[in-house]
Amino acid sequence: MSLPRLSLAQLERHLPILQWAKTYDRDTLTSDAVAAVIVTIMLIPQSLAYALLAGLPAEMGLYASILPLVAYAIFGTSRALAVGPVAVVSLMTAAAVGNLALQGTAEYAAAAIALAFISGLILTVMGLFRLGFLANFLSHPVIAGFITASGILIATSQLKHIFGIDAHGHSLTALLQSLYAHLPETNVITLVIGVVTTGFLFWVRKGLKPLLLGTGMNSRLADILAKAGPVGAVAATTLVVWLFGLQNHGVRIVGEVPTGLPPLSLPSFSADIWSSLFVSALLISIIGFVESVSVAQTLAAKKRQRIVPDQELVGLGTSNIAAAISGGYPVTGGFARSVVNFDAGAETPAAGAFTAIGIALAALLLTPLLFFLPKATLAATIIVAVLSLVDFSILKKTWGYSKVDFSAVAATVLLTLGFGVEVGVSAGVILSIGLFLYKTSRPHVAEVGLVPGTQHFRNILRHKVKTHHELVTLRIDESLYFANARFLEDYINDRVACDEPIKHVVLMCSAVNEIDMSALESLEEINHRLKDMGISLHMSEVKGPVMDRLKRSHFLDDMTGQVFLSQYDAWAALARGKASGLAAQ
Amino acid sequence: MSLPRLSLAQLERHLPILQWAKTYDRDTLTSDAVAAVIVTIMLIPQSLAYALLAGLPAEMGLYASILPLVAYAIFGTSRALAVGPVAVVSLMTAAAVGNLALQGTAEYAAAAIALAFISGLILTVMGLFRLGFLANFLSHPVIAGFITASGILIATSQLKHIFGIDAHGHSLTALLQSLYAHLPETNVITLVIGVVTTGFLFWVRKGLKPLLLGTGMNSRLADILAKAGPVGAVAATTLVVWLFGLQNHGVRIVGEVPTGLPPLSLPSFSADIWSSLFVSALLISIIGFVESVSVAQTLAAKKRQRIVPDQELVGLGTSNIAAAISGGYPVTGGFARSVVNFDAGAETPAAGAFTAIGIALAALLLTPLLFFLPKATLAATIIVAVLSLVDFSILKKTWGYSKVDFSAVAATVLLTLGFGVEVGVSAGVILSIGLFLYKTSRPHVAEVGLVPGTQHFRNILRHKVKTHHELVTLRIDESLYFANARFLEDYINDRVACDEPIKHVVLMCSAVNEIDMSALESLEEINHRLKDMGISLHMSEVKGPVMDRLKRSHFLDDMTGQVFLSQYDAWAALARGKASGLAAQ
Repeated sequence: MSLPRLSLAQLERHLPILQWAKTYDRDTLTSDAVAAVIVTIMLIPQSLAYALLAGLPAEMGLYASILPLVAYAIFGTSRALAVGPVAVVSLMTAAAVGNLALQGTAEYAAAAIALAFISGLILTVMGLFRLGFLANFLSHPVIAGFITASGILIATSQLKHIFGIDAHGHSLTALLQSLYAHLPETNVITLVIGVVTTGFLFWVRKGLKPLLLGTGMNSRLADILAKAGPVGAVAATTLVVWLFGLQNHGVRIVGEVPTGLPPLSLPSFSADIWSSLFVSALLISIIGFVESVSVAQTLAAKKRQRIVPDQELVGLGTSNIAAAISGGYPVTGGFARSVVNFDAGAETPAAGAFTAIGIALAALLLTPLLFFLPKATLAATIIVAVLSLVDFSILKKTWGYSKVDFSAVAATVLLTLGFGVEVGVSAGVILSIGLFLYKTSRPHVAEVGLVPGTQHFRNILRHKVKTHHELVTLRIDESLYFANARFLEDYINDRVACDEPIKHVVLMCSAVNEIDMSALESLEEINHRLKDMGISLHMSEVKGPVMDRLKRSHFLDDMTGQVFLSQYDAWAALARGKASGLAAQ
Repeated sequence: MSLPRLSLAQLERHLPILQWAKTYDRDTLTSDAVAAVIVTIMLIPQSLAYALLAGLPAEMGLYASILPLVAYAIFGTSRALAVGPVAVVSLMTAAAVGNLALQGTAEYAAAAIALAFISGLILTVMGLFRLGFLANFLSHPVIAGFITASGILIATSQLKHIFGIDAHGHSLTALLQSLYAHLPETNVITLVIGVVTTGFLFWVRKGLKPLLLGTGMNSRLADILAKAGPVGAVAATTLVVWLFGLQNHGVRIVGEVPTGLPPLSLPSFSADIWSSLFVSALLISIIGFVESVSVAQTLAAKKRQRIVPDQELVGLGTSNIAAAISGGYPVTGGFARSVVNFDAGAETPAAGAFTAIGIALAALLLTPLLFFLPKATLAATIIVAVLSLVDFSILKKTWGYSKVDFSAVAATVLLTLGFGVEVGVSAGVILSIGLFLYKTSRPHVAEVGLVPGTQHFRNILRHKVKTHHELVTLRIDESLYFANARFLEDYINDRVACDEPIKHVVLMCSAVNEIDMSALESLEEINHRLKDMGISLHMSEVKGPVMDRLKRSHFLDDMTGQVFLSQYDAWAALARGKASGLAAQ
């Protein structure tokens, strides 16, 4: 009976939990649970901090770290991905929702919830329709530039909490101007807390683990303690504020965080909100997916496992829908947290579900303790986290390798800093696609000759090759399609408009992977014009799929010359041993 | 002294009139004047009719046929292009301006003038920055589909004048619904005039010339008389309306057309109008340019002349600016009129300037005679003119040749008919670019082997070739760039994940015209993974420009294998005579 087995396989493809749950045992449970404890310790301050970055109440960060993790455990294919609020998506949420409502209002929170829901739908639909390939149109350099620029924007946006002042803006210049204008209002106590915490966290990141190892502590424990740095900073600064009543001296605190599990509810279905948020949700979905899938792929490769990108879309999509119905905001797989999860030994997505239990316990038990937590501490954890994302080396690498890639990165960085995340990443994508199209619209064409002693043909300008005065062989280094059809016509017109007694033009098609209708019409035109001039048009090395299609048109019947299997065959037939000497280097 | 000569050459490049005016003589003058007379006879009814189609007063059609022609004569490079109002651009003007104001109001006319000005600026700037290549992104099939669908829309939109009723809409369904709703209000006298005129014009087009030739009339005169058909229809129907006072029986007439030359004035510079019209102006500019440049190129080729596309942009741009400052509306080179101009013997752009004089005389002298001209006659001339544009053969041609091209055409036709010209043409462009990108993101990869007795390598699935069990040679039929970088990684992973004792993977790069930064990172990753599996990575037939760039990166140093000049060299070095038998066909 093959039908039931097929449907089980299909079911397993759509519900990856069915695959790994079958072999789940006590050992795996232990590994997952240990990883979950470490990730929970890391996630509590991060979820609060990223909610702050998104301009949302602290509890929404916690809510976004419970149900979404459970949903990903059921639908996701990565064994180590840690889903939840992340820095870049939080910043993009603030940018998107900030256009619709004022921070701190109920409308703002409702819009963030709706954003998560729309983004979840987009991701799920993309997954079901297998549109994961769309993410490939974000080039590596554009992503690198975008992450770097976002890191700078995020760090700058948190300076206001370190100084204890107000500042707003979605671009670097707006943020800096606003910070500068409010600088006189700096609260010195806040500044001391912020600077000391930031310094402490940097030191924990770099210096604590070696120090602990130096005392003879075992490596695992030293690692956990180093990861607990932010939790320590949260506890210490909360205690200091409470002991000295610093909230009465202008230190801004988190304040009341509701105790309990997230309330389940449906997001807004207002057409206005949906249409205003759609483009933002699309950008957040794609950026979130790309960030998530690249870390998932890297981690999977280390254990020779595979992830299924289209199913990942469903996993992240259902996570965002889960976030929306439980009062959270857009989530994705975080880079740093996933690496920690992997290093801590997570073996299945169950580790994420256990993390969710940890955060749920925190929401039930720890929220009263967060009342006196200074916002400056959260800002410090964000700054330390995102500055590790800032890496300008991509500018140097692309400058050396390809000016086209460089200009796409540079535009992405500058426009993200100058006009915010949405403009930046859109411009990066559009520019890289535009530059690719521009290049293909003006293809490289090489005139080739025979490399002596071989049957191989190369560019007459780069190699010492044999040519024949009656034969012009052009190797077109691009597929022929509408954008370059006219270019080819002009190129061949110019080439044959000389005094040489040309009798044959051979188009060597080894690099032509496609001839579309527009290019076919251009070839017909070229054939026609050459015929008027008494020149035959031939083709060589036409690939199977291209030839299949040409055979369905009338072009081959009308062509004055022939199609040769190889360029050497064309040479043998047309140059008939009368080859002239070597062309100049 | 080379400097003054250089500037003269440059001046001539920007002012093509300087080139042909030097050799202008009496013979050329006679030819141009004759052509101008014929084009003028054709243009008077057309300019009135297209103004009606654009929803503008009749005189604006005349105004758009005076100064713009002079501007083109100075700045244009085509010897035969007849610039002025054309059907498709008139329809696009109505669609663009109809969003801003009601037909018949002063705001409507002002918006049409502003549209001409913005379009003129866009074209001129594109010309100065040599952006003419952008027009190549409109594929031939998309243009053909768009013109056909526009022809149907235009003919349908004119039915209301034939029936003497009101009807509105920018899509076919809206137009038909509106026509159907108003059908009971049909004015029978108008319908008779409209149907008889349409029939007469179709007959003139097909039957008059053979009839005249049958009477022994010389071919030239028969041709002119056939071209004068619309003028005859205008005269006859005007006379009938005047004689029988049909305007009092519900026949709608053109009415008062101001006498005199167009008033010179500046267009509106309102930021609101400009921002609402910008996208429409861009579409009109590109469509107008593509239509114009393709007819100009066809006609130039017949006389072995050349046009300069970037200078054509300037010619059309200044024509539109001239239209805007003289009370006209967007113009471009018309297909039918240019062919007539060419056939009538026009030798230089001066023919256009003479046509302008003819139209100016008409504006000065003939306008009182147009008072009783029925709108149904103008509608009939439009219908007969545009139905010759309708040609569905492109659907059949593309269906047979390429489903990708077919879907772009089909979408263009359906969306133009269903949602109007702007949506239709935008969708056509976006879809053809999108489909091209999609194809390049999933390249064809062929595993190749040696064709016996040659040094040529072909697909093992299509040809009988020699292979070697330790060697896998993959010919990647596409440039490697961000959109397919991940695809290649996955493809190679899948290919080597088998039980064969593979020792070498050769990437045959004859079709790889570009390796961008994203693809380079993927190659590094592939090299790294293959190394872990004990497999060397090699490349062959890497082209000059690609190799130049690879040498600037570290990839070649880290690569486990070598780069071979030809695939045969790679075979000779790696298969070492141990080739196995022929692979299956």
